[in-house]
Amino acid sequence: MTDKVIPDIVIGRLPLYLRALQRMIAEGRQVTSSQELGERLGISAAQIRKDLSQFGEFGKQGTGYNIEYLVEQLGKILKVDRDWDVAVVGAGDIGSAVARYRGFADRGYCVVTIYDNDPEKVGAQIGEFVVQDSADMVADIRKNGIKIAMITVPASHAQEVADQLIEAGVKAILNYAPVSLNVPAGVRLQHIDPAVHLQRMTYYL
Amino acid sequence: MTDKVIPDIVIGRLPLYLRALQRMIAEGRQVTSSQELGERLGISAAQIRKDLSQFGEFGKQGTGYNIEYLVEQLGKILKVDRDWDVAVVGAGDIGSAVARYRGFADRGYCVVTIYDNDPEKVGAQIGEFVVQDSADMVADIRKNGIKIAMITVPASHAQEVADQLIEAGVKAILNYAPVSLNVPAGVRLQHIDPAVHLQRMTYYL
Repeated sequence: MTDKVIPDIVIGRLPLYLRALQRMIAEGRQVTSSQELGERLGISAAQIRKDLSQFGEFGKQGTGYNIEYLVEQLGKILKVDRDWDVAVVGAGDIGSAVARYRGFADRGYCVVTIYDNDPEKVGAQIGEFVVQDSADMVADIRKNGIKIAMITVPASHAQEVADQLIEAGVKAILNYAPVSLNVPAGVRLQHIDPAVHLQRMTYYL
Repeated sequence: MTDKVIPDIVIGRLPLYLRALQRMIAEGRQVTSSQELGERLGISAAQIRKDLSQFGEFGKQGTGYNIEYLVEQLGKILKVDRDWDVAVVGAGDIGSAVARYRGFADRGYCVVTIYDNDPEKVGAQIGEFVVQDSADMVADIRKNGIKIAMITVPASHAQEVADQLIEAGVKAILNYAPVSLNVPAGVRLQHIDPAVHLQRMTYYL
């Protein structure tokens, strides 16, 4: 791997490659090709080869990719060859579902805590977690060195929560609140808003 | 509006504009500018003006945009000036959270039914819904003319469910299962996978 700057759009596709490859492993597969991967993903084989070639040589002409090796390498590139602690802020329906979701464990993430500012929710049990008081959030997150958080509070509170998380040292935020957030340079931000995704399709109906 | 083909990436930004404008209305605002909208969204004012100009003239030089008028026009363009019935397939944590989510109502969507194939879940109450048997799904969806569905089943069943939905006449699928799906031309597909979103950020940490 070199120090050259890889376009965001290439980085954005790597998790899809990784997910498909991990699924192949679960199916008991050992070797694949850019063609097969492309068919599964709806991405051209040439695009996949070009993307991967940014990081080195992962396959041999004619013999394809060793799936386990490629998973290992993609894990290193994406830095998910370890477990990242994740804080969830907001213990409503979405926050509760995310905190209970079992799909993070083998993909590099471990939800370790969930916060809410509602006295009726603080202390409640959600899956294996006890909801913590948001008043302790900044100090806790700073003390534990948590770098990743998911915001699942109402839109009206999301920017305030984001500001607090950043103050506490969080560097990556996955925002479920239906509002765009402003974060300083050096903090990564991704959004999940199902209504936005639906509206991107309805246009074509 | 003309019949020219608008790039997908432009259509993809319109829901963000609409969301920000609806938020301004909630704040009691009446007029905005591409500058202000751009600052809220982290998108350049020039980009916003260019995107909107694809659909006509929405603002006057110097006086900005009338927010309500622009919301109305964007709603028409995105076809969310009506209520689309949405079926949810999978009554686990995510499906339950999505079915209970109150944020769809004023954005063009109305969840009308939730299915599961687990006899222990069928008949259970989730918010205002009684979980329906997946065995009835294809016939129900066809009869009711539902065109939009959300898949919240495990990855191993997602393609099979997608195939059934498409057979039933569904034209737009929002897939929460952590697997890429194949759909025929004419069917729109969007994915939400929080681990993929997290992995897109971890690279930069």
